[in-house]
Formats: sequence, C-alpha cells, structure tokens
Amino acid sequence: MIFDKYDRIVFAGDSVTEMRSQNPVGEGLFDALGFGYVRMVENLLMSIYPEYNIRVTNSGVGGNTSRDLLNRWERDVLNLNPDWVSIMVGINDVWRQFDTPAMPDRAVTPAQYEQNVESMIQSLKGRVKGIFLMTPYYMEPNPADTMRARMDEYGAICKRLAEKHGCVFIDTQAMFDRYFAHQHSTFIAWDRVHPNQIGAMLIAREFLKHCGFDYNHEA
Amino acid sequence: MIFDKYDRIVFAGDSVTEMRSQNPVGEGLFDALGFGYVRMVENLLMSIYPEYNIRVTNSGVGGNTSRDLLNRWERDVLNLNPDWVSIMVGINDVWRQFDTPAMPDRAVTPAQYEQNVESMIQSLKGRVKGIFLMTPYYMEPNPADTMRARMDEYGAICKRLAEKHGCVFIDTQAMFDRYFAHQHSTFIAWDRVHPNQIGAMLIAREFLKHCGFDYNHEA
Amino acid sequence: MIFDKYDRIVFAGDSVTEMRSQNPVGEGLFDALGFGYVRMVENLLMSIYPEYNIRVTNSGVGGNTSRDLLNRWERDVLNLNPDWVSIMVGINDVWRQFDTPAMPDRAVTPAQYEQNVESMIQSLKGRVKGIFLMTPYYMEPNPADTMRARMDEYGAICKRLAEKHGCVFIDTQAMFDRYFAHQHSTFIAWDRVHPNQIGAMLIAREFLKHCGFDYNHEA
Amino acid sequence: MIFDKYDRIVFAGDSVTEMRSQNPVGEGLFDALGFGYVRMVENLLMSIYPEYNIRVTNSGVGGNTSRDLLNRWERDVLNLNPDWVSIMVGINDVWRQFDTPAMPDRAVTPAQYEQNVESMIQSLKGRVKGIFLMTPYYMEPNPADTMRARMDEYGAICKRLAEKHGCVFIDTQAMFDRYFAHQHSTFIAWDRVHPNQIGAMLIAREFLKHCGFDYNHEA
Amino acid sequence: MIFDKYDRIVFAGDSVTEMRSQNPVGEGLFDALGFGYVRMVENLLMSIYPEYNIRVTNSGVGGNTSRDLLNRWERDVLNLNPDWVSIMVGINDVWRQFDTPAMPDRAVTPAQYEQNVESMIQSLKGRVKGIFLMTPYYMEPNPADTMRARMDEYGAICKRLAEKHGCVFIDTQAMFDRYFAHQHSTFIAWDRVHPNQIGAMLIAREFLKHCGFDYNHEA
Amino acid sequence: MIFDKYDRIVFAGDSVTEMRSQNPVGEGLFDALGFGYVRMVENLLMSIYPEYNIRVTNSGVGGNTSRDLLNRWERDVLNLNPDWVSIMVGINDVWRQFDTPAMPDRAVTPAQYEQNVESMIQSLKGRVKGIFLMTPYYMEPNPADTMRARMDEYGAICKRLAEKHGCVFIDTQAMFDRYFAHQHSTFIAWDRVHPNQIGAMLIAREFLKHCGFDYNHEA
Amino acid sequence: MIFDKYDRIVFAGDSVTEMRSQNPVGEGLFDALGFGYVRMVENLLMSIYPEYNIRVTNSGVGGNTSRDLLNRWERDVLNLNPDWVSIMVGINDVWRQFDTPAMPDRAVTPAQYEQNVESMIQSLKGRVKGIFLMTPYYMEPNPADTMRARMDEYGAICKRLAEKHGCVFIDTQAMFDRYFAHQHSTFIAWDRVHPNQIGAMLIAREFLKHCGFDYNHEA
Amino acid sequence: MIFDKYDRIVFAGDSVTEMRSQNPVGEGLFDALGFGYVRMVENLLMSIYPEYNIRVTNSGVGGNTSRDLLNRWERDVLNLNPDWVSIMVGINDVWRQFDTPAMPDRAVTPAQYEQNVESMIQSLKGRVKGIFLMTPYYMEPNPADTMRARMDEYGAICKRLAEKHGCVFIDTQAMFDRYFAHQHSTFIAWDRVHPNQIGAMLIAREFLKHCGFDYNHEA
Repeated sequence: MIFDKYDRIVFAGDSVTEMRSQNPVGEGLFDALGFGYVRMVENLLMSIYPEYNIRVTNSGVGGNTSRDLLNRWERDVLNLNPDWVSIMVGINDVWRQFDTPAMPDRAVTPAQYEQNVESMIQSLKGRVKGIFLMTPYYMEPNPADTMRARMDEYGAICKRLAEKHGCVFIDTQAMFDRYFAHQHSTFIAWDRVHPNQIGAMLIAREFLKHCGFDYNHEA
Repeated sequence: MIFDKYDRIVFAGDSVTEMRSQNPVGEGLFDALGFGYVRMVENLLMSIYPEYNIRVTNSGVGGNTSRDLLNRWERDVLNLNPDWVSIMVGINDVWRQFDTPAMPDRAVTPAQYEQNVESMIQSLKGRVKGIFLMTPYYMEPNPADTMRARMDEYGAICKRLAEKHGCVFIDTQAMFDRYFAHQHSTFIAWDRVHPNQIGAMLIAREFLKHCGFDYNHEA
Repeated sequence: MIFDKYDRIVFAGDSVTEMRSQNPVGEGLFDALGFGYVRMVENLLMSIYPEYNIRVTNSGVGGNTSRDLLNRWERDVLNLNPDWVSIMVGINDVWRQFDTPAMPDRAVTPAQYEQNVESMIQSLKGRVKGIFLMTPYYMEPNPADTMRARMDEYGAICKRLAEKHGCVFIDTQAMFDRYFAHQHSTFIAWDRVHPNQIGAMLIAREFLKHCGFDYNHEA
Repeated sequence: MIFDKYDRIVFAGDSVTEMRSQNPVGEGLFDALGFGYVRMVENLLMSIYPEYNIRVTNSGVGGNTSRDLLNRWERDVLNLNPDWVSIMVGINDVWRQFDTPAMPDRAVTPAQYEQNVESMIQSLKGRVKGIFLMTPYYMEPNPADTMRARMDEYGAICKRLAEKHGCVFIDTQAMFDRYFAHQHSTFIAWDRVHPNQIGAMLIAREFLKHCGFDYNHEA
Repeated sequence: MIFDKYDRIVFAGDSVTEMRSQNPVGEGLFDALGFGYVRMVENLLMSIYPEYNIRVTNSGVGGNTSRDLLNRWERDVLNLNPDWVSIMVGINDVWRQFDTPAMPDRAVTPAQYEQNVESMIQSLKGRVKGIFLMTPYYMEPNPADTMRARMDEYGAICKRLAEKHGCVFIDTQAMFDRYFAHQHSTFIAWDRVHPNQIGAMLIAREFLKHCGFDYNHEA
Repeated sequence: MIFDKYDRIVFAGDSVTEMRSQNPVGEGLFDALGFGYVRMVENLLMSIYPEYNIRVTNSGVGGNTSRDLLNRWERDVLNLNPDWVSIMVGINDVWRQFDTPAMPDRAVTPAQYEQNVESMIQSLKGRVKGIFLMTPYYMEPNPADTMRARMDEYGAICKRLAEKHGCVFIDTQAMFDRYFAHQHSTFIAWDRVHPNQIGAMLIAREFLKHCGFDYNHEA
Repeated sequence: MIFDKYDRIVFAGDSVTEMRSQNPVGEGLFDALGFGYVRMVENLLMSIYPEYNIRVTNSGVGGNTSRDLLNRWERDVLNLNPDWVSIMVGINDVWRQFDTPAMPDRAVTPAQYEQNVESMIQSLKGRVKGIFLMTPYYMEPNPADTMRARMDEYGAICKRLAEKHGCVFIDTQAMFDRYFAHQHSTFIAWDRVHPNQIGAMLIAREFLKHCGFDYNHEA
Repeated sequence: MIFDKYDRIVFAGDSVTEMRSQNPVGEGLFDALGFGYVRMVENLLMSIYPEYNIRVTNSGVGGNTSRDLLNRWERDVLNLNPDWVSIMVGINDVWRQFDTPAMPDRAVTPAQYEQNVESMIQSLKGRVKGIFLMTPYYMEPNPADTMRARMDEYGAICKRLAEKHGCVFIDTQAMFDRYFAHQHSTFIAWDRVHPNQIGAMLIAREFLKHCGFDYNHEA
C-alpha cells in the first residue's frame, strides 16, 4: 500500500465528499466522517489494514464550488498538515450554470476553475506525499447532454493538471460510465449527482485502486 | 371555457400530483391542495374566473403506481362524484424498473398499466363530463435513454387509450421536450421527475390549454 | 416584453412580498423565493419565457413599514444592482394605527410614508431601467371603513409619487375591488391582508399586465 | 347571582369557544379550559365568587358548524349532566359559504341551522336550569357586507328561538358593534372571527351581564 | 379613572409578572404580554375603556430578585418613558433563602431589598405620574410558617417605602389571605407562588381597585 | 435483610412513585424505573447487595387515585406475581378535594379510600411474602392546614389497615415532619407533593429502614 | 459467486442486523436497509456485481432474542420467499443474563436457544438454496470473561447446528478475535456489541468470504 | 463528618462527573447537578445531614481530558472559592489512545497527565480544606486488558500524587473490581465507562466513605 503507518489523508470537496459529515472538517468518533465515499474508504482501510492507523479526515462542504473551496483551503486543508490530499470539486461550478442560469456569479467558468484547482495543488507542493485529483462527474451517460459535455471540460482540466503536477488522477466519470452499461443512473442517484451508498462504494473502490489497496489483505 | 359553474375536477395521480397536498384527498382551505400543478390550475381558475366557482380536488398520493391508484380508485375518485377527472400516472410504474430492478413486484409492466388505466376510464363512462389523460413523463430529452424510452411506451398507451375512449389527451412529455430546447432539465427538476414551481406551472398551463381557458379573461 | 435577457428584478416589501422567502433576501434554488406573488411572477416568466433568464429576487421582510424598509434599503436593494425594482409597502404603516393604537411609534404617518418612499425612488434614479410602485391595499371593499380609508391615503401618495417620478404605477387596491364584485374578501384572505395562493396569483397577474407579458407566448 | 353553588355550566360551540381547550371537552387543572371567553368567565366567577364552586366545562371544537355540534351533542353536552348550557354556534355555517363557495356541502343553510339549534334546545328541556343562546357574529361593522348580512340572518334565528323557548338571549354581535364605535375590528381580531384576549374578555363580560354577576362582590 | 388617555404603564417584576411574556420587555400584538395578571389588567382596561388607549408593557423576568431587577432597571423600565410604573418583586429574594439555603449569594437580605427597591423608586421621582408598589407574597396562610413570616418582612418594607415616597401600596398578601378563607391555596397555585389564571385575575382586580377602574363603565 | 435472593418487589402508586418511569409498568434497562424513590431503593439494593438480585418493578402512574389504582390492580400488580408489594396512594384522592373542589367526582372520600386500599390488600393475601403500606403525605408541617388535616385522615386509615392486616406500615408523613425541623418544605418540593431527588432519597431511606437493609453491608 | 441473478437474501437478526433499518423488514430505496453490515453486503454486491441484481432484505429487529425472532419468523422471513437466509441471533439471549440478572424471563438458556434456532433452520429445509448461520459474538477478547464464555456456548451451538443441517457457518467471534490482535475492542464498539461502521465492514467482509465474492470482479 | 456547615465541595471531572449536569458548572435547583454520582452525594448529604447545608457544585464536562480540565480550571474551579475539591479525570486521556489511535493529539500521555493533575493540586494549596483525588477507572476486571492496564498507570499516578500532596485518595477502580466479583461489568455500564444509576451510587458511596459520613445519622 502506498500509505505509511499513521499517514493522514484529507479529502477536500463538496456535498459528495461531505455527505452529512461534521462541518467544515470531520473525523474520529461517531458519525463525524459522514456517510459517503470518505467513510467507506476509511472503513475499508481500518477494517482490512488495522495495523496502519491511517487518519482519514473529511473536509467536504455541501454546495462548494472550487472558488468556495479555495477560500477555506488554508483553514480546512493546509492547517491540518496532511500527508495526502484528495480533491474532488467542480460539480457545483458546472451545475449552477444549468439550474440557476440567471445568476452567473454563482457558477465558475473553466478558466477560473483551472486557476482555482491549480492554486490548491501548488500550495501543497513539497508539503505532502501525494495529491489525488478526482474528476467531477455527472451521472449522465449521454455525452451530448449539455451539462455532461460541460462537466467533461472540467474533467479534462483535472486530467491536464494531474499530468502537469504529477498528481494521482482518478477518473470517476469514466468509472460511472462503465457502470451504466449495467444499471441506469437512477439506480445510484436520482439527481445524477449525489450517490446513494452503492454509488459511494463505487467511488471509494475507484479511489483505493490507486493506493495499492488489497481487499484480501490479512493483517 | 369547457367547465360549467360549480363543476368539480378531481386530479388523480402520484407524487407529481400530490406535492404535499392532504392525503389521500385534499381540497379547500389552507394548503390542502398542495404545492404542485393542481394548485396552480386552481389558482389560475379561481383568480381569473371567480364567477365560476370550480371545485378542484387533489387525489394524488406519492409513490403510487397505476396499480396503487386503481386500488383506491373507488374511495378516492368515484365516491367524490366528480364532473371531470384528470389522470396522470405511470412514472412509478416505470421508475421502479430502473431504481430497484431486483424487486420486479414493485413495478408495473406496460400490459398491466394499460389494463389499470383502462379500468379507471371505464369506471367513469357515463358518470363524468370528460376525462383528461396526461402522459407520464421523464424529463430526459435523450430518447435513447433506456428509462425515457420505456416511459414513452407508457405515454403511447395513454395516447391510444385517449383516442379509443374519447379522453382529452395531454402530452406532458412533448411539452417538456419543447421546453428543454431552452433550458436544461435540471433547471426544473434535479431528479427529472418532481418539478419545481416553474415545472408545475408548465404542467398547469399545458392542462389549461385543453380547457378553453383564457388568461386574459376579465370576470 | 419590457425586460431584457438577464435583467434582474428586485421586489422590496413586507410580509405580502416575503411569504416565507429567505430573509432578508431570497432567490434561486429550492423555496428561497417564498410562496407569494413574487414566486408566481417568477414561475410565469420562467415557464413562458425560458429564453430570457430573468433574475427574480425577493427582498420582502414580514412586518416592515416603509421606515423599516428604508433602513435596510442600501443593503437589501441597492447593493444587489437591480435592473428593475418593485416597491410594495405601507400596509404595516397603516395597520399599526388600528391594531395597536396605543403605540403610535410603531406606525408611520402619511407624511413620513411619502418621504420614505420618495427616498427609495430617488436613490434609484439613473441606476435602474424602471421602478414599479404597487399600492398598499386593504382587502376591505367598504370605502367608509376607517382603515380602508386610511390605506387609500397611502395609495394616493403612491400614485402621486409614481406620476412625479415616472414609475410604473400598479393599483392593487383597485384590482382587488374589482375582484370583490365576484367573491367575498374572505375567499382570498381571512385577515384582509395576507393573500392565499389565489390572491397571490391576482397580484402577480396585475404586476405582469404592466410588463408586456404575453401568457400565450411560445419560446 | 342566578347560579347555585356547585352548578355546572357547559359551553358548547366552535373554535371561538374552544380556543385551545382540551378536545372535545375540557375542564379542571392546567389549561384544559383553553384561553378564550370560557376561561375568562371561569376566572371571574372563581376569583370573585370562590364560595360558589361553579363548575365550568368547555365543549367547543374548532371548525364546528351547527351540524357538527348536533352530531356530538349527546356525548359532549347531554351526558355531562349540566345545570346550564350555553350555545354559541353558526359562524362556520356562514363562513364556508364565503371562503369555500365551491363546496356548498361544507356550509349550513339558515333553515338547517334553525333546525339544528332547535334540536339542541329541545333536548335540554326539563333537564337544565337554563339555556344561554349567544348569537354568532362577524366583527364587521358594515351591515351591507354580504357575509355580515348573512350572519345577521343566523343571529335573528337565535333571537327567535330564544324567545320561543325561553332561553337567555345574548347578542354578541350588537355588543361588538357598540365596541367598534371606539376601536377598529382589527384591534381585537385580524380575521374578524377569532378574538384576542381583549375580545374574549368582551364576550365573557357580555355573558356575565345576564347572570346577575357582580364584579364588586366580596366573598 | 386615574389614568389619562395614551398613558403608558410598565409592570416590573419576576416570573409572576412575566408569565411567558416576551423577554425582557413585551407588549402589543399576539402573546407578547404573557398570560398573567398584566395581561388581565390590559384585557380589562382595553375591553371596558377602549376610548383610553392605555399602553401596557410587561417588564417581568422569571427568577429576578430585586438585585436582578435593579441591574436591568435603566434598560427595561426607565428607557421606556413610562407614565406609571408598577413594581412587584421580592419573592425570589426570600425563596432562595429556603429552597437553596446553602447558596446565600443567590438570595437578598431585607436590608439589601429595601435599598434596591428604594433605588428604583428614587430613579422615578419626577419622571412618572405615579408608582404602584405591590407586596411580594407567599400563598401560605399560616403566619407561623418561616418562609411566610420572612415574606411578611419584605411586605412590610414595601409598605414603609410606599408611605415614605407616596407610592400606591397594593397588599397582594392580604388579598390572598382573605381569599384563603374560601379556598385552599392549592386551588390557585400548587407551589404557592405562581398563580393560575384565577390567581392572576385576583391580582389584576386588586391592582385595578387602586386605579379608579369601574367594571360597569360603558365607553 | 428481609428479602430473599431473586425476590420481586412491585411498587404501586401515583406520580410520586412513577416519576417518569415507563408506563404503566417499568423495570430493567435504561430509565424504565424512573427517577424517584423507587429507583433509589433499587440503586441502594443493587449497589450494596449485588449478590441478591432483587427485582424492583415500578407500577406508579401519575394522577392515580386509589380508585384508579384499583382499576388497574390486576393487570399492573397481581399479574406480575410479586413477592412483595408496596402501596403508596391517596395524595390525589385528597388533592382533588382542594384544587378542583367543583368536581367532587374526581376525588375519593375516606370511606371509599379505605375500601379501595383494603381490596388491594385482600387480593394479595396468601400470594405475597409481605405488603408495605406507605402513608400518603402532604409536605405541609402545619397540622391545622385543611389539606394536611385531611391527608392525615387517610394516613390514619393506612395505619389502621396495616395493623388489621399485618402490613409493614411506613409513615412518610411523620418522616417528613421530622425533616422540616431542619429545612423548609420548599427545599424538597415546591408543590409540597412531588419530591426532588433529595426528597426521593428520604422516602427510599425510610422504606429501607423497614427491610433490614444495612448501608454498610459489604457483599 | 454462489448467488444466481435475482436471488433474494434475507438477513434475520437483532440490533446488529437492524442498525436503523426499516422495521420489521426493510429493503429498497433510501435508508430502508439501515446502516450496518447488511447494507455493506448490499453495497459491495451491487457496486461490484451490478449485473446480478441480488435482492437484499433486512429483517433485523433491535433487542430480539432467538425467542423473539422465532415468534416473527413466519411473517418476517418465510413469507418473503427468500432464496437464502442468514441468521445471526443470540447476543440478547446471553446479554440479559448479565445486565438484568434479576429478570431471568428476559433471557434465553442454551437449550432453548438451540431449539429456537433449529426450528428456524427446519422451517427453511427444501425452501431455500442455502442458510448462513453466523455466531453471536461478544467483542471481549478475554475467554475467561463470564459473558464471553457464555456467548461461546451459544456460538458452539451454532457450529453444531450448521454442521448437522449443512448450513454455511460464519464464525464472527473468531474473526473479531483475530482483529483484536491489532486494535482494542473499543476501537469498533464501546459496548462490545454494536459495531461502528468499521466493525460492520468486518462482518460484511466475513460474510462475503463464504459467497465466492470477488472484490476485484469487473462486471 | 469532615465537612463544616456551609462548606462548598466542587467536583471536577469529565462525563462521568457531568452526567447531564448544567455546563460547565451546575448546582442548585432542578436538574443542574445532573444525574450521576455528584447528585447522589448531594442527595445523601442533604437528606441525612439537613442541618449542614453543604453546597455541592458539579464542574464536570463530557469528553474532558486532564488537559481540557486544566484549561478551564481557573474559571470553573478556582473562581468558585471551594472549601473542598474533588478531581476525577483521566479516562479520556486513556480512552482516546484506544478508540482513535490514529489521532494521538487527542489523547494525553502519563507524563502529561501527571503534570496536569499536579498543576491542579498545586493551585489549590492553602486555598482549600482538602482535596479528593479519585482514580480514573475502566470497568474491565481483566488486568491484562491493554486499556485497563494503561488506565492502571494513570490510577497509580493519582495514588502517588495523593500521597505526595496529602490528598484524600479514592480508589474507584479497586471498588469496581470488588463489585465485579458479584456482577458482570455490563450490569452497571455497557461501555465500561459511563455508570448507570447503580454504578453512580457505588461511586457516591465510595466517596462518602472518606468523609466521615454516617448513613444512620439522624439530624
């Protein structure tokens, strides 16, 4: 596994990351980690690698665009001294362009998005062991859908930034696309954004594929 | 206008019809009519045709398939002695095939659907002045989407039954399709099923187009 | 229609404007616009003119007199950079003279009222495309009723100010008076102030009559 | 005072009588008597005539028409073995004709009203020491108002029945009319039906005027 | 009546005065005046003397000793510019000596009490038309009871101060004592301190006896 | 100690026994035993005599008179097959005579009380190892108080019945009287009926004095 | 994998199985499956084997002993026509012997337990494809602990019954024992019974080990 | 008894001390003292030694480690001017090492613990009549359990500090160990930390053993 014992991973993001976790930062006892993919990553690591004591912290806040996340970046990510940081943001940057089109100041353009995420990455340079960059997604399999097409632009930015800065790139959109060969998107999310527990497990598993995680490991 | 003074219209349906109305049947004071298209139909009729005293009754129940609606048909529709009945059902018949595919007993097949709706129509023969048959819809503009394609089968059944039995046919799906030329579906419903107030207005207006309703009428 | 694409309209007022909207300013997703005439204006504009993307903002606060509204004018109206502003205030200025007559400091005299509303208008000069001035009203058809008579004084001030400053004048009181030829006031408001959804539709329709709005428009 | 020691008075009526009392019948400890005129009658009797131990029972139920009250008459009035019964009903009989005119089955016509109240009176013949018949009212001073005019028809029925059957007749409408020479109706009831505590005191005092009650009595 | 039109009376006190009124100061619409003797005073004045428009303000706060009341005196009494002030305080000064004897700092001695109340009186000199001084009480008829005996010391201080400063002296304790000749104290207060509505009426009537109030007045 | 291992004691009574225990019968985990003297008896027995496993059951129901308790006696006491039964009832039998004197049917006379309690005792004859009869009490030290004097009549009945039937007699009234030599009754109960935790401990200790309980026992 | 497409698995048990699932039987949309190991089994199956459409039903009810489960067996398990049944029960059978030792009727002896579980198994013979028998456990690693030792007796019964009847035997106790080599039991359950999400994952993974489940499967 | 009349005892600690008391400091009326051992100490002192008027103050705050307690020491203990102080802290210092091992900054090492507690003791020197030092405990009878063994280290520190500074040493761990000879730990605490009312009584009795308290004292 790529993690060392006692490593701390901070997951930064929006409501998909938050999922009822303690705000703005949650970890530890009870339900502070929320009920989404972050918790499932923690559950799998802690149950299968109990000898590692990985510290998992949820820094997701519902409704956050990349601009919102950048505004709280120092307080809610940097100051936690993480060993690893995972970023999944951008869904709200795009969504607001389609659900409240009359209020363009609520959305974030691709250019602004790229700048925001790159700022986050640069702030971490030399301070962490690794950065995970997860694409934003829209659980809409039709690439011609205007919102899906727009989301793909943001995903492409993630890919470009990951390559440029040596981040671990996690393509959640591609993973969901594969899944929709078997089930309709409404099976894991009525609104094509907020996954139910099955969808959360899909994201967690996709994340762990990039961590040298072995489900069959015995401590 | 096709309605006579003191006519009673009963709207039967599922959660799209219900929208927080009193269950199983709501009408009259306070919010008993709920907050969906039924209320907007009533608001427009009552504000613009105050001399008509049309009685609007909401008989929508969230989660109802055509099977569920048929089971409560006598109590919640026939016994109310309506002059007009509007039926919009079928979304849950289809949805359950996609969001809980492992539980086929929760869904309703096209054949069963046709039988259920036809039973409703026949029970009204000779007892009402007219029947409105509104198609179920999925606010998914892509006709290749499997759930949308399935929903279209149910809409086609409605059309066939309306023609066969002389019902007023209201194609909500076609209306939404026209709307999506201008806005993305997420603008009026995140889950592509439950409309916000704008979507409710769209349905209400589509309904009233078939009623000889004149917005510019002065009482 | 008199509005341009992406125009922003701010509706300032009291509880009739607020109607459970987000306080002090509401717009956008979910029920932030409340459940009164503002929302119905937005519903009609958005459903029938989807290509316009008009931005509708609710700046109504329950209990506000013209004095209260003026106190929050800069924060809740001017700072929003509206293209259009609609003002409907004065009901509480009058009501407090009758329901708590022993506390004259809670009410607002006609002279103060005129000054307050004129200050609002002047602050908007050269900054907006147009101002709507809606009369306060009392859903009491008897002109000899002392509170109705008093309210008419305030409505007359609105009319005078609208003419003086070139505002769009909307006479809600006259509209209600016409309506009461057909229904008793208790049909739309038990307390003769807070309209139910039918009454809200009446106000919304009266407002839109002054906007070049065409209900039969097809986008 | 016309009451004997340990007499029991049962007040039957609608929401004006109920005012948050225990349903359907309330008396005794805590707030079982509610917060309306019944309680004030009790407060005045108990504080000024403590040596009498008058038993006051509230049998008001919100929304009741005379038809509803008659339906529960045996259970909620006769079975209590009252010494005195006070009846104030009819407001909802009339109100429903104006606030929900499309649902005539919810209202009660004058003929039905007379029959209902007379049935109540006859059931008490020979079983009680006296019957109080209080008029329904509408706190609308304008006699030309259609709902007020209608209410006066019901009040006239009460008067006729009181004379015919020797009941104590209490004209609450006339009492309110006198009061409105000094204050606007909105001072004691926004909806012209449900009195605030001041209005409740007015009714209580009017009731006690017919009971030989002396406020200056010292026990 | 001793009051002039539009006079303002402020009632200062503890929980007996407060009785669920708005904190720290309540008046006007809805239940801001609470449910105790203050409201009943207002109800009687407003219903019987509607032409006076007396302004009644409740400045009672539960748990207040004379020390607590003095601390908020300027904000909650003086700044309201009352024409008349009524003071009823002292119950908690005494009660804490008996229910939490181990915490003497929570109680107030007779000497401190006298100083506190005199400070209040002096602050009003020349600023009000009159001051009402109501004794604290304990609804315990046995004068040998230690807490009752202690309370009597505080009542005697009130009497002395009233005479010294020309206040209207209202002996609530004596009034209750007379009442207990007819009913046991548990009839109006289980804890011998917080009156039910009957007890509140007793206090209100005692207060009004000193105001030239005539229950049989017709406006 | 007079109890054998695994003996079951059922405490029957009113609100003093209940004290928020599970209704109508509570025992076992969490707070099913409530927060009154029953729980303290259990706490002392279980903490000091852990080797005994005494089963303590709370069968107190708030507001119960001896008549109410007798009505549920079979279901809530006999059917539990107790080894010991403790009865403390009568406070409400007396209280209702003083706090709602106009409703004599809510109270219970001495003669009825004696009959009720004797019925309970007789039903237990030969079925239990012992019966505890605890007097009702009023925490009023003045024997001349009418309610206290009345309560003493009921206590005397308990004493007589205990002697006649060989019950363990527990004089809670006498115990409280001794306590009031040191503290005022308001120290343990504002209403002189419902003890706080200190008062509950007093009752528990008094009960245990009759059980051979040794606080200094070491298991 | 041992399951066929569209197989239905019913998980019967106590609070460990229930974990806030819908009572008494939960499945399908939203959180009806609860938040325990059952949901995690479903999440893993549905996310990794989407082509199987396995139906997972939660029939756990908090507090159930084997006796309680047997009482509802027909309604909550047999009538669901499962293809597979998993049984995990017995913790409460044992726990009640230690946390409420004075109430032996709340617990279940080993002999009764064996009979109860065997009855469940026999009822399923010839009706299901397979039965999973999971041991009850106590997350207490010390085998000398009296409650742990007692729990082991029940686990041994499970093992014996599994062998006798050809059930799939799942030794959750042994699995936890291995885990406690790395973490203290308080890490996954403060009360050594109710697992947190990490503990739930451990149970789910142990269950799936016996199902031919491959975490690395790609649909 | 070692206490003088009117002495004040402040109990400082964590959730075991707090037990729903008012935060951060509770005493006096109602449930401000909470429902744990502090209240039981108070109940026993107040019911058996009413002539002493001992003042008992609860300064327990849930979740506190010795570090947290030290941080609020001045405000919540010293400033109260206690005559006696009881300290029971350390459970969370240890627990966090086992339930959240990945977050070492949440726990407190033995060295830090000793320093923290010694600081508290020294701050009290010359200011109080006596200090009680109660060991932290883990209701785990197995001394080989890692968390129990760790807790014993902290208990040993308490013992050493008590001897060094002349504090009254109270060994709650030893007391519980004796108790577990008779009952399993789950009988008084499912999580082996938070005692139920029986466990609270055990702590209270152990505390009072060191105070010259005589249960059989008669005031």
